[in-house]
Amino acid sequence: MSLTMMASVPARSMLHSPLWRMSTAAMPVKYFSSTASCRKEASLRSDLKDAKRVLVKVGSAVLTREDQCGMALGRLASIVEQVSVLQNEGRQMIMVSSGAVAFGLQKLRQEIIMSMSMRQTLSSRDEKGGRPFIEPRACGAVGQSGLMSLYEAMFMQYGVRTAQVLITKPDVQNEESRKNLRSTLNELLRLNIIPILNGNDAVEPPDEPDKDTDMGEILTSVKDNDSLASRLAVEMEVDLMILMTNVNGIYTQPPGAEGTRLLSTYTPSVDNKNVVFGRKSKVGMGGMESKVHSATWALDRGVSCVVCNGLEENAIINIVAGKKIGTFFTHMEPTGTPVEIQAMQAREGSRILQSLSGGQRAAIIKKLSDLLLQRKADIIAANKLDVDNAHEQGYAGPMVDRLVLDEVKLGTLSDGLKQIAESAQHTLGRVLKKTLIADAMELRLVTVPIGVLMVIFESRPDALPQVAALAISSGNGLLLKGGKEASHSNKFLHHLVQEALEPYVPKETVGLVSRKEDIQDLLQLSQYIDLVIPRGSSELIARIQQQSKGIPVIGHSEGVCHVYVDKNVNPEMAIRIVRDSKCDYPAACNSMETLLLHRSHFRTPLFDGIYDMLKKENVKIHAGPRLSSLVKFGPAPATSMRKEYSGLQMALEFVDDVEEAIVHINKYGSSHTDAIVTDDSEAAERFLQMVDSACVFHNGSTRFADGYRFGLGAEVGISTAKIHARGPVGIEGLLTTKWILHGNGQTVNDFADGNMKYLHKQLSIDSNGSDSEMEAMN
Amino acid sequence: MSLTMMASVPARSMLHSPLWRMSTAAMPVKYFSSTASCRKEASLRSDLKDAKRVLVKVGSAVLTREDQCGMALGRLASIVEQVSVLQNEGRQMIMVSSGAVAFGLQKLRQEIIMSMSMRQTLSSRDEKGGRPFIEPRACGAVGQSGLMSLYEAMFMQYGVRTAQVLITKPDVQNEESRKNLRSTLNELLRLNIIPILNGNDAVEPPDEPDKDTDMGEILTSVKDNDSLASRLAVEMEVDLMILMTNVNGIYTQPPGAEGTRLLSTYTPSVDNKNVVFGRKSKVGMGGMESKVHSATWALDRGVSCVVCNGLEENAIINIVAGKKIGTFFTHMEPTGTPVEIQAMQAREGSRILQSLSGGQRAAIIKKLSDLLLQRKADIIAANKLDVDNAHEQGYAGPMVDRLVLDEVKLGTLSDGLKQIAESAQHTLGRVLKKTLIADAMELRLVTVPIGVLMVIFESRPDALPQVAALAISSGNGLLLKGGKEASHSNKFLHHLVQEALEPYVPKETVGLVSRKEDIQDLLQLSQYIDLVIPRGSSELIARIQQQSKGIPVIGHSEGVCHVYVDKNVNPEMAIRIVRDSKCDYPAACNSMETLLLHRSHFRTPLFDGIYDMLKKENVKIHAGPRLSSLVKFGPAPATSMRKEYSGLQMALEFVDDVEEAIVHINKYGSSHTDAIVTDDSEAAERFLQMVDSACVFHNGSTRFADGYRFGLGAEVGISTAKIHARGPVGIEGLLTTKWILHGNGQTVNDFADGNMKYLHKQLSIDSNGSDSEMEAMN
Repeated sequence: MSLTMMASVPARSMLHSPLWRMSTAAMPVKYFSSTASCRKEASLRSDLKDAKRVLVKVGSAVLTREDQCGMALGRLASIVEQVSVLQNEGRQMIMVSSGAVAFGLQKLRQEIIMSMSMRQTLSSRDEKGGRPFIEPRACGAVGQSGLMSLYEAMFMQYGVRTAQVLITKPDVQNEESRKNLRSTLNELLRLNIIPILNGNDAVEPPDEPDKDTDMGEILTSVKDNDSLASRLAVEMEVDLMILMTNVNGIYTQPPGAEGTRLLSTYTPSVDNKNVVFGRKSKVGMGGMESKVHSATWALDRGVSCVVCNGLEENAIINIVAGKKIGTFFTHMEPTGTPVEIQAMQAREGSRILQSLSGGQRAAIIKKLSDLLLQRKADIIAANKLDVDNAHEQGYAGPMVDRLVLDEVKLGTLSDGLKQIAESAQHTLGRVLKKTLIADAMELRLVTVPIGVLMVIFESRPDALPQVAALAISSGNGLLLKGGKEASHSNKFLHHLVQEALEPYVPKETVGLVSRKEDIQDLLQLSQYIDLVIPRGSSELIARIQQQSKGIPVIGHSEGVCHVYVDKNVNPEMAIRIVRDSKCDYPAACNSMETLLLHRSHFRTPLFDGIYDMLKKENVKIHAGPRLSSLVKFGPAPATSMRKEYSGLQMALEFVDDVEEAIVHINKYGSSHTDAIVTDDSEAAERFLQMVDSACVFHNGSTRFADGYRFGLGAEVGISTAKIHARGPVGIEGLLTTKWILHGNGQTVNDFADGNMKYLHKQLSIDSNGSDSEMEAMN
Repeated sequence: MSLTMMASVPARSMLHSPLWRMSTAAMPVKYFSSTASCRKEASLRSDLKDAKRVLVKVGSAVLTREDQCGMALGRLASIVEQVSVLQNEGRQMIMVSSGAVAFGLQKLRQEIIMSMSMRQTLSSRDEKGGRPFIEPRACGAVGQSGLMSLYEAMFMQYGVRTAQVLITKPDVQNEESRKNLRSTLNELLRLNIIPILNGNDAVEPPDEPDKDTDMGEILTSVKDNDSLASRLAVEMEVDLMILMTNVNGIYTQPPGAEGTRLLSTYTPSVDNKNVVFGRKSKVGMGGMESKVHSATWALDRGVSCVVCNGLEENAIINIVAGKKIGTFFTHMEPTGTPVEIQAMQAREGSRILQSLSGGQRAAIIKKLSDLLLQRKADIIAANKLDVDNAHEQGYAGPMVDRLVLDEVKLGTLSDGLKQIAESAQHTLGRVLKKTLIADAMELRLVTVPIGVLMVIFESRPDALPQVAALAISSGNGLLLKGGKEASHSNKFLHHLVQEALEPYVPKETVGLVSRKEDIQDLLQLSQYIDLVIPRGSSELIARIQQQSKGIPVIGHSEGVCHVYVDKNVNPEMAIRIVRDSKCDYPAACNSMETLLLHRSHFRTPLFDGIYDMLKKENVKIHAGPRLSSLVKFGPAPATSMRKEYSGLQMALEFVDDVEEAIVHINKYGSSHTDAIVTDDSEAAERFLQMVDSACVFHNGSTRFADGYRFGLGAEVGISTAKIHARGPVGIEGLLTTKWILHGNGQTVNDFADGNMKYLHKQLSIDSNGSDSEMEAMN
């Protein structure tokens, strides 16, 4: 039997044994269920945190530098660091490490060049790489000791002891030696020693070099170390096996191919078929077959597996923490449709939806409006589950109010939908511009749907039918993600939306996404989703904007709104507008955060009036720098003049005049909504022109910045972006345009030749932009 | 004298001396100029590649894990890896390493807990961290040996030998011992050994713990190791000193503060003042003063310095390669205005520009139009420099044609500008929507400028005045970046633009950016720039889209345009449209890349006619899968059906009918421009509606997709995005909107109370959207 074992002995005097023996005791130790009782693999990534015994297999590609000049020491050390952390948490870590060949190659290549004559050196170069060939097994033998001493020295830094175990195929095939191996490894684990296993290349029969890997001229059979790892994992009853390689996980097709997609989870019974296409091709799944086979084989025997990229920082720690790294193998079939399929179905549905007539789209919305009344008992029953749940969790007040659906709310909702249905008749195909380019050549700019929208909303379940109606009216496919707190209500309301859709278009045209973690996946699918609209906190919106890969996001980052009270004002009006802007609904994004007062108001009855009113309304005031310098015992200074308090707090500051107010707002505001209160129309016009915000108001409360109050019907959201839609976004924000040209065979060459002449005559469009030809089309 | 030196001796038998002694010989060696001849520091980052002697100082923060549980082994190893690579290239590397304290703390913390009684353990915990305090110098003493043996083991993997040198302040202060130190280090460098220096903490007088760093309760004085490094660098006449820390470099203000900015270069005479603001505050420059002082001190003595983040991958290698990592200290004052200032000036200028009347903006453009004629001799002279340059570099043909400015071109250009001036009168303040919200409460949606645009264009210098005129007309500030090949022409034309601007607004309202590397910096400045419009190759546009941090980019990723020839067609028309779409200007984004033919045309005279015409025009055909299966000896198969050939090549494929053509185009197209040739109006309408592209044409060449041909006047670019502007973008694409509300003191509460009622009455707007009130405003 060729099982070789060398337990490392701490070499430096400072690393004396009491220290390492005590090391786990000094660290926080978590206790896991015994190995015997958790022989069932984890079905969810979140279960991985309970893995007691973890095997990490590191492929050669991870430990070799991209330039193939030796070891990637940085990565190796990072893996050691992570494995040590987990070991010191009280887990039992096992490593299967490739890399000895690369390690030995690095040494031997220099050695051999030195020992060859110049003629040999020249003749030994192959045509491609220009490097001498060195027998892989020799490299492995040379590299093994160096790699192990490196592992040993690194692990020692964390007070972790290691043992080298070299094995060959017969060791795992032969039952007797497998038993020996198992008891050896168990003893090592019991002693808190990490066994590091590798194939004993020196005595192993040679492998066929694997042409598909990136390893250049010297190759180990990656395949074998994968199956070695999974056999060991099963034999040692580990809870989690991590296979580290140089791609991010298992893809549906070879990485880089069109439409290929990283699988975050791999369910053998399902993905087996999904991935088949990739397997047929030459490149296969990017050399991933052996990993899939090994991982599936281990999974079937109760070992959880993750295939991940060893080049990714902190991959091991993050996998054990349950984060979405690499591909997680599980037997649990995904519940519901995978999000990518949902997105694809919404795209397909949207194409059919936009080919319907305006009347047909209106009919769908009317049906939904009716269903809201017909099924109100069922809706309210589903809603009750959410409300009860909220009460159980101790929620109360406005949060629960927003959650509740009652007859009155459903009535209003149903009425609102009827209005949207009405507008659906003329939303699409509106002609915005009509130009006679040349004789018999007419160009029209018409409204068309954007495509597929993803709308993310919180708590209020009545948003679901509203948003669905807006999307249907504008011919867009839709993916909805509601808050968890309203899941029962949302599920039932979505069911009604689909019931209304089904007679005309596939019901999947409007999809409901149930899991929060799906959002991030959806934000990568720019081929299916055209626009994302998050409704909710500015944190939510900022997060979505960050995560989106190439899909535009409409939303407002913050709502730092101002009211400026100019010199000449009606004091009573100023107080009323300030009160309404701040106190009507302080949590709203259009509520005032900073009040700017003209300096002439300092210590006037108006100032006192505003101050008293704010005090009475329990508004806490933060002083701007100017105010702070004016009053000795005034309010505490504001930490920043750009702050969204979102509650009964606000900043108060003085400015010299309207010009300074404009500069202040453009500097500290968030371009949402800002108002001036003044009797001076010149100052007002200056303010309205120069303040660079989506909404600018004269003598009106900032709270009017709202789709309904603006008369836009239902509001999709409020945008502070400079392009597309700005301010409250109604249905117009869900539309884009398309240029349609009708000719009779013209070419640009006809015009260059002078045979034809550009006319560019603007043709008139009738008042509501409808166009007989387009109407016929819809 | 307390200078301690221990040269490391290779310990493992395999690392026998011949190997390491030969190691540099076996690697490619670059020879650098001798140290004596390059005592002048590098003025440009690109000079750093010639640095022969490099000192790398690694701060404790780099080597300590964020959770403060010991060493960040991964980072340490990565630094060793990089230093080894540079050493093996033939450079002389010197390291100054902190981290011994952290290293020792890791060991001692466990040790001390073990040796304390429970009572001691409890009482020794401080209020915050809950960890026992350990004397930093004791930690340093314990850590030193461990850290060195780790360095030694790691460097040995690359055949690099190291020597430990411990020094105290007196060693560098005292001239005698400094001389000894220098000769020792020089001898080590001569022997190809990397000296690793550290303060000898055990004998050094204690430092005041520095409260500003993140190191928790145990602190070394980072300051001292910085000045130690710079003293050594000067003493040893190194060419480059790299100070590694845990922030990205020197910031204008404390990192995280509003408006703070990383300085890519630091010129003491200039930035000295710029950074002053940060220095005043408590946090200082994020603990960066000592680094700035040390680096400036060394710079003044001929040592190039870079301060960088040690947590960034490959920082050392990239710095030596001249990449823009961290802050580079140089005496060379930046030429021209820093781009951030340019962007700020464009923002300020834009505010004034939009407050001008339409007539004033028109006057600027008319003046520019006149200047193009008045100064034509100068323009042509400047242009000649560029043209001659292009000829010298062997360019010819279309590239040079696009570059040339002659009297005819300038005449056309001047005329075009007059048209833009005309339109400038009515561009801004146009009322798009007018709503009576309630009594005495009117809401208007008006056109306003976007703000500041950045336009990146290639070769054609006539684009500069055109784009400038469009920006001025729409009240936008502008930053222009032209191609290097037209730099003389662009510079002069920009000068004319500024001459035209100056009577009305600051001339910096339109800025010219000269260096390519500035683009990336500008793409981070979302506070100053609102929209980026790259004009040029799809690679350029894709790169810009990737680099932009939060600034929207208008552009088309690709132009994969299709012509579909339906069943019932006029053969002559089909051939003409196909020829024009492909051959008129094959490099344009609106030229056809794929021709789809209805299957009924297979082996018909029409098919032969198209085939012969393409052959005559020298168009190379790539066969789609269907065509490949139909003909045995046909054209070679296309590698992909989504390919922009941008030349006299194209794909040819058969489809069953219009439905299949639509599916094909939506799948493989780039949503740019697609045309159908058919006599069947039903098929045409189906195609126009269902093809999801910015431009869809019936019986017209795809080449018509162009701002000028569409009658939009000058074109800013073509967009394939779904939001904002789609297709050819004229001046409309440079505008956004603003909601303006005039009230007389209303609050939303008035409506909630029932005192007021929403009317939401749409008011009519006169035909060209002008509005008396707004006109008065402008």
